[in-house]
Amino acid sequence: VFVFVHGGGFIMGDKRSEKGPFYRNVGDYAARQGWIGVVPTYPLAPDHPWPAGPEALRHVVDWIRRNVAQYGGDPDRIVLSGQSAGAVHVASYVAHPDYHVMPGGGVRGAVLMSGLFDTTAGEPNDNHRAYYGTDASKYAEANCMPGLLATHIPLCFTVSEFDPPAFQAEAARTVGAWGEVRGAFPEMHYLVGHNHLTPSQSLGTPVKDVEALLADFVGRVTA
Amino acid sequence: VFVFVHGGGFIMGDKRSEKGPFYRNVGDYAARQGWIGVVPTYPLAPDHPWPAGPEALRHVVDWIRRNVAQYGGDPDRIVLSGQSAGAVHVASYVAHPDYHVMPGGGVRGAVLMSGLFDTTAGEPNDNHRAYYGTDASKYAEANCMPGLLATHIPLCFTVSEFDPPAFQAEAARTVGAWGEVRGAFPEMHYLVGHNHLTPSQSLGTPVKDVEALLADFVGRVTA
Repeated sequence: VFVFVHGGGFIMGDKRSEKGPFYRNVGDYAARQGWIGVVPTYPLAPDHPWPAGPEALRHVVDWIRRNVAQYGGDPDRIVLSGQSAGAVHVASYVAHPDYHVMPGGGVRGAVLMSGLFDTTAGEPNDNHRAYYGTDASKYAEANCMPGLLATHIPLCFTVSEFDPPAFQAEAARTVGAWGEVRGAFPEMHYLVGHNHLTPSQSLGTPVKDVEALLADFVGRVTA
Repeated sequence: VFVFVHGGGFIMGDKRSEKGPFYRNVGDYAARQGWIGVVPTYPLAPDHPWPAGPEALRHVVDWIRRNVAQYGGDPDRIVLSGQSAGAVHVASYVAHPDYHVMPGGGVRGAVLMSGLFDTTAGEPNDNHRAYYGTDASKYAEANCMPGLLATHIPLCFTVSEFDPPAFQAEAARTVGAWGEVRGAFPEMHYLVGHNHLTPSQSLGTPVKDVEALLADFVGRVTA
């Protein structure tokens, strides 16, 4: 079961666009792989601030575990993925065991594309303030980095060659911290030629690098 | 012109093995790409300590620039590559302009596979002592990290999933430092399924991921 959580700076975005294929393309890709694709929406900020993200993911995982068998899916083989703010919401679930549906999180792995996980790094922008609020203690509570560095859930990160500098710096910081804490290199894929949006948007197109990367990761963690 | 510098912990290794295809396979790969392949040897430690590595690379680059045209190669389109200690020697050349054959280094890019570039990180092992000696000031002088973080030569790093922990930690440290200094993510490729030796050894086999990665990098920097 492959779950994809869209981005949009916490305040916008949808699982579908009126005039385009996004992100139906992700569910279609999952289906072509022989998986069950799940592409949820979630409550948006500012109406739904932190911790709306990990709460939404908890409901998603809980719903899948209860219902996916009737669609032919295996509730014990769920892989979460997300892009940008969607990656942050997935990371929030992974990194905060308080929101887990069961010990260990109930998922086999998580794909985190171009996310900002360390809420204590850099200055909050308008989107961050809309979601995390203005109380600094919320930022510490919402910080995904310590939980990502500690989790036993297999993670697959991506960063794009043409990601904005803040996202590239965050990915570099994540790798550096991972090396210090775990003495190893995380599964962080540098996507040549991609920008902030194209990794998930490439699914179903002739650009197959991200398709192959996801299929490999999903195959390994659900084997 | 694609140059490959073999590894071997500074004290061993060769451009050819009596009984195997390594590293003839790298030259063959280059030729199949339509490039000129150059696979040099170099003086080994302990008989030839630091700075024998960057000196050897200076001679290699100088020789190529003077002679490669008669073999059909373009002296202005040289890409260096190396693995393990070979990556360190290539990095030494890139990072230390004192050894450059001309301003800018005279090369279009460098591929650094599974190297240890920061001589001030971690405890030296027997191989390091054989090459860098026992004088701590040599380690500071030989350190590639500051020069790599400052160079304008395009770099392509690889780290392997099954690299020993010291190499993974070094790659993570490199990415973290790059992010701090450059505010960006370096071109560091995480090679799923590979170990310390297989990236260069995969060239010419049905495992095409590193072949494709190198061809893409070389194509971009020599365009």
